[in-house]
Amino acid sequence: MVYHMPRTDLALEAHRVRAGAGRLEGVEVREGDRSGFHISTVEVRSPAASEELCKPIGIYHTVTLEPVLRREEAAFSSAVGLISGLIGDLLPKNDRFSALVVGLGNRAITPDAVGPKTAESVLATRHLRDQDASMFSAFRPVCVLSPGVLGTTGIEAARLVKAVTADLRPDVVIAVDALACSESERLCRTIQISDTGISPGSGVGNHREALDRDSLGIPVIVVGVPTVMDVSAISDAESMKGLFVTSRDIDTTVSDFSKLTGYAINLALQPELSIPDLDLLLS
Amino acid sequence: MVYHMPRTDLALEAHRVRAGAGRLEGVEVREGDRSGFHISTVEVRSPAASEELCKPIGIYHTVTLEPVLRREEAAFSSAVGLISGLIGDLLPKNDRFSALVVGLGNRAITPDAVGPKTAESVLATRHLRDQDASMFSAFRPVCVLSPGVLGTTGIEAARLVKAVTADLRPDVVIAVDALACSESERLCRTIQISDTGISPGSGVGNHREALDRDSLGIPVIVVGVPTVMDVSAISDAESMKGLFVTSRDIDTTVSDFSKLTGYAINLALQPELSIPDLDLLLS
Amino acid sequence: MVYHMPRTDLALEAHRVRAGAGRLEGVEVREGDRSGFHISTVEVRSPAASEELCKPIGIYHTVTLEPVLRREEAAFSSAVGLISGLIGDLLPKNDRFSALVVGLGNRAITPDAVGPKTAESVLATRHLRDQDASMFSAFRPVCVLSPGVLGTTGIEAARLVKAVTADLRPDVVIAVDALACSESERLCRTIQISDTGISPGSGVGNHREALDRDSLGIPVIVVGVPTVMDVSAISDAESMKGLFVTSRDIDTTVSDFSKLTGYAINLALQPELSIPDLDLLLS
Amino acid sequence: MVYHMPRTDLALEAHRVRAGAGRLEGVEVREGDRSGFHISTVEVRSPAASEELCKPIGIYHTVTLEPVLRREEAAFSSAVGLISGLIGDLLPKNDRFSALVVGLGNRAITPDAVGPKTAESVLATRHLRDQDASMFSAFRPVCVLSPGVLGTTGIEAARLVKAVTADLRPDVVIAVDALACSESERLCRTIQISDTGISPGSGVGNHREALDRDSLGIPVIVVGVPTVMDVSAISDAESMKGLFVTSRDIDTTVSDFSKLTGYAINLALQPELSIPDLDLLLS
Repeated sequence: MVYHMPRTDLALEAHRVRAGAGRLEGVEVREGDRSGFHISTVEVRSPAASEELCKPIGIYHTVTLEPVLRREEAAFSSAVGLISGLIGDLLPKNDRFSALVVGLGNRAITPDAVGPKTAESVLATRHLRDQDASMFSAFRPVCVLSPGVLGTTGIEAARLVKAVTADLRPDVVIAVDALACSESERLCRTIQISDTGISPGSGVGNHREALDRDSLGIPVIVVGVPTVMDVSAISDAESMKGLFVTSRDIDTTVSDFSKLTGYAINLALQPELSIPDLDLLLS
Repeated sequence: MVYHMPRTDLALEAHRVRAGAGRLEGVEVREGDRSGFHISTVEVRSPAASEELCKPIGIYHTVTLEPVLRREEAAFSSAVGLISGLIGDLLPKNDRFSALVVGLGNRAITPDAVGPKTAESVLATRHLRDQDASMFSAFRPVCVLSPGVLGTTGIEAARLVKAVTADLRPDVVIAVDALACSESERLCRTIQISDTGISPGSGVGNHREALDRDSLGIPVIVVGVPTVMDVSAISDAESMKGLFVTSRDIDTTVSDFSKLTGYAINLALQPELSIPDLDLLLS
Repeated sequence: MVYHMPRTDLALEAHRVRAGAGRLEGVEVREGDRSGFHISTVEVRSPAASEELCKPIGIYHTVTLEPVLRREEAAFSSAVGLISGLIGDLLPKNDRFSALVVGLGNRAITPDAVGPKTAESVLATRHLRDQDASMFSAFRPVCVLSPGVLGTTGIEAARLVKAVTADLRPDVVIAVDALACSESERLCRTIQISDTGISPGSGVGNHREALDRDSLGIPVIVVGVPTVMDVSAISDAESMKGLFVTSRDIDTTVSDFSKLTGYAINLALQPELSIPDLDLLLS
Repeated sequence: MVYHMPRTDLALEAHRVRAGAGRLEGVEVREGDRSGFHISTVEVRSPAASEELCKPIGIYHTVTLEPVLRREEAAFSSAVGLISGLIGDLLPKNDRFSALVVGLGNRAITPDAVGPKTAESVLATRHLRDQDASMFSAFRPVCVLSPGVLGTTGIEAARLVKAVTADLRPDVVIAVDALACSESERLCRTIQISDTGISPGSGVGNHREALDRDSLGIPVIVVGVPTVMDVSAISDAESMKGLFVTSRDIDTTVSDFSKLTGYAINLALQPELSIPDLDLLLS
């Protein structure tokens, strides 16, 4: 018997489909609250569990950001701190690593623009060290790349990232992408942070090549924002092909989550900076 | 017994819900093909039918634009010609009328931006006649206004249009707006042209005041593009509130339909111009 | 003998051309520093001085914003506080006035976009009071309008503002516009605040009708940012027609000054709000 | 004695400064008219002439596009045909070459955005052949890359292009960039096409590494649009630092020239396509 697995890039949702409220062998799920936000952590530990969930082995945090969306006071800075901490835990443990931040997706398609828009909020610092080693020596070297999409560049994003990685030799890649989810509770309200890279078919734009430790030789942290839900989750009519469900204020959602994600990445990479510093440096 | 009427701004869909494949007293429906496009025309003739359909008395053309979306050769110019003819039939019959074109909706929300974006493609000519009567005397005087939305201006769009209409005294208003539909067959694929004005609650942004002959004292032609479908059409879950269904390439759809609508309005108002003229004048 | 007066919208520069380091009968000039910023105030008091300077009778503050441009810490909030105070001094003295904020200029031309972009950062509140009087009763009623430019709307901006003012009856208009200056020291570095309205020929877009107390019947405060300098200030070659001097980072300048101006207007109109409140409400 | 050479990326202007109306040893200048446009061709032939003009050895066409700017009928298609022919003459002579089109400059700075904006109008076809060899076999394989600028990516554009070129092994690079000129007659009115690559210090953004046959191992054709003029050409005041002269309608200029350049590159690379084909494929 074949179970239908709806299209979702969230490990949490895949686990809910397979295990319901129960448990799955080889998967550990933890629920918790931190700084006023709910975090669900799914750890996929065995090849069998990975195959069952269609998700690579690794750790997946899903943070619910309702307080930010309700624009509660200080929610933005709390969320930046929390996400930045979750990313930081996945970064290399030495102090001298360099990073490449990759904004995946199509800037011209609103729900797919989270990656490129986040990239605009990430401080590139690699060239600063080259310019004045003493002044900027506190900064970790960071490069930022938005590789575009196959349809407009003719180059698979993963291939472009590989070429750049081979040339610049960063110690870690942080990739940001728009995701698809299967449950409206998570749509435009959550962020998933994982250490598993991007696998073929994930993301709103459906990448065809992997972007992970196997393909690049270095760790690939992925920060993803579910901005669309496939209508097949709610209807399987033929005329629904090419349609999706999204939030009424998708433009604001993409803008808010991109700033939030960008700031969190900056603080994870440059722990000596503060949010007001970033406000100054990025405006 | 109360029938549930799903949210739709298309008279054609309202009629389908109420009458199915049958007929409704006081409504005439005509189907036809012209220039390779299918046109459904619904004429609401009696107060009873108007109440039954929740649509003002008047004529509603719905044109299916599949050939344009498939980017068939010459489909754009055919569609511009067809829509421009349908608009032209609703315009005043004398040669000397002046027009106010109104782009309704929120420029910053992609599926609601059809109105303001169309306005960018409409030639304003009123001031040209004032500048050089002989050279531009062939142009009908046209003004173009994008009144914005209540949330960002503090002014109801209808009220702003009324104030401007009272001052400029145009002979006709052509309002352009994004619409909601209830069937995926029409989503991001059709244009509705009507002579009935905008009624409260219609449009993606849910206007609260009417913009019609009663409120303005002059005819109000409305060109509407269904860019969203309420998810209540397919699911009534609580968590679906604030979500909608739209097409995967909504950014392109809005851009294409806005240009198409703007060009059609220009040719209806200035019949001596051609599409290549507009390409030159509007770039 | 006729002195050539270079094109400038800054009273300070006009005074420098006419009076040099000296004094002009009917004009008072004060220089001072506040919150780390330099303020030059020119008060034009007599009809003769007004004619000599080609500037209406009234008060003109020019604030130099170098510390903001150097991105000094806290410079943004200091500047917002200072500008907001200067605007506040020109507002009606009673507590119950309502305001119309007008963003003049062309959104599609970068150096002319200061007005419309500032308008995007101003909170519209008039409709909130109508919606829930108790909750929002602390807010002064504010409307926001970007009337566009004659070339794309066919309506003189001043005429549109007049029609709206006649309808809504605000107690004061605050107009924001891009200005032309004649000296590079002030280009993209200063803000002028005046209580004199906009006169024909001023602004980057060269308005043809006045927007002032005479034409509207209520006070018109103008906040202007010099974003271009006429090349005639430095060269009178024929081939220089249609060219202007601007700063290399004009896009950033327009974006920064628009946010600064919008925030200052908000704090002047709603003194109970803070910058962090605005960050939340406007994002 | 040292002559001052004003900052210009146009070989034509450099030659005028050095040779006036006379001749320079090792340089050939040809003037001519084609399809209603004036073309000046400068051929730099000797190392001595190259040093004298601060321009690499090679051919430089400067086309004056006044008829396009005056929006004369058919001027756009004539100009596309002409520029496409000039580019075509510099392309490899075999039928099976592949190309990488590179849009240099900063998308967020209007006068520097010609490169990235042109890239948006270039058809990427490399992946189409991989997808369906039979259907798209008529297309030459083309990739399109906008590498961004050092300040926001941390990666020198030339280095990114080198890494991609090493990986994809195209036969030719076509780079598009905004240029600086020294004479207002050419500002925002001309296009320069050369076979010399980009040298350090050229372009509006001042690249620091070369992008040419020496660095990439393949021919590098450059299409450049002069969008700014250094004010040092007209004034050497200290306060003029960081300022430049540009046209009043720079936003329109950049948009028009980018479309023109993109279309010309497409027709040079895919001679079987027409302008209406491109209108369909690129919208």
